[in-house]
Amino acid sequence: MSTAGPARTERLAAQLRFVLEIDKLKSVLRRTSILDRSRRENSAEHSWHLAIMAIVLAEYAPESLDLGRTLKMVLVHDLVEIDAGDTFCYDHAGRLDQHERERVGAERLFGMLPADLGRHLRELWDEFEARRTVEARFAAALDRLQPVLHNYVTEGGSWREHDVTRDEVVARNHPMADGAPELWEHARALIEDAVARGILRG
Amino acid sequence: MSTAGPARTERLAAQLRFVLEIDKLKSVLRRTSILDRSRRENSAEHSWHLAIMAIVLAEYAPESLDLGRTLKMVLVHDLVEIDAGDTFCYDHAGRLDQHERERVGAERLFGMLPADLGRHLRELWDEFEARRTVEARFAAALDRLQPVLHNYVTEGGSWREHDVTRDEVVARNHPMADGAPELWEHARALIEDAVARGILRG
Repeated sequence: MSTAGPARTERLAAQLRFVLEIDKLKSVLRRTSILDRSRRENSAEHSWHLAIMAIVLAEYAPESLDLGRTLKMVLVHDLVEIDAGDTFCYDHAGRLDQHERERVGAERLFGMLPADLGRHLRELWDEFEARRTVEARFAAALDRLQPVLHNYVTEGGSWREHDVTRDEVVARNHPMADGAPELWEHARALIEDAVARGILRG
Repeated sequence: MSTAGPARTERLAAQLRFVLEIDKLKSVLRRTSILDRSRRENSAEHSWHLAIMAIVLAEYAPESLDLGRTLKMVLVHDLVEIDAGDTFCYDHAGRLDQHERERVGAERLFGMLPADLGRHLRELWDEFEARRTVEARFAAALDRLQPVLHNYVTEGGSWREHDVTRDEVVARNHPMADGAPELWEHARALIEDAVARGILRG
């Protein structure tokens, strides 16, 4: 085909523009800090952390898991924050239009890719958001477990900073019960211990 | 089994100690900066970036690829830097004992995990280091392409800062020719253009 050369060149160019664009996720800051408390965590390194957690904790999914798809989902799940920003999970006002802001971000960002790849990443993001598959529910559970661990280890972290209560933390993290029951049991114990130690408001 | 409970509890505890330990990779700084040049990149967000690149660029591997294993490999490949630090690829002295320092790091770090998981991660790291499989060679190609893109876009970046020459850059990045021939061709063009633009010493 006479267009194979230029079409292939443009395909690679689009892929590399996307690769450069997503570097911006390294500048989207979350409310949680890294464990040495020197600075806030960004969404790119957070996504990496979830991916390793998926590898190391896969056995706690309630059914056997397609780990490859789970990894892809946690790796792409926060990309939309490049446009929408990170929405603090206890910011009730911010969460009202969160999905709409993120949907617009998804259109633009995944739209930068060749159509087949853009569709693939969009489907992964939609799957994560819908939480209907075992992989999506497990990914969502890890996305909740990680800040619980961080806040517990950093003496209350963003819980204390934003004066969040135990009931709010339990309500926020309860979806873990579906996605990774044993991990939720463990998180539940950490939350109670945090209240007992006075680093989370009872 | 009477020990199932405590054994399972200790297994999860070891897994979570590892999850917390690897947070330290977020503080291991590389020589390249993030694209807005506001700060240096850390090895955790770099690993995330490679993983997304693997998803988006998989078609450029010379043979069809086990993407799941490739993802696992790029996600764990820099963990040993928690103990060994990041070794600048043009630091010839530092590279002399790099592998030994990293091997000791691998023993300690993967040794924190339950034996089966520790062995699995160690095998992934060994596979990456040996570069004998198509997945390992493709992963290594991405690990080289990413800093080339960054240095090119940031007006020479760490190339200029450390006065690296074109020949050194070509020698360092030449393994891309095996792992992802078309991407190497593209990188080669960027390198020549960088020399022409005066952001890389010819």
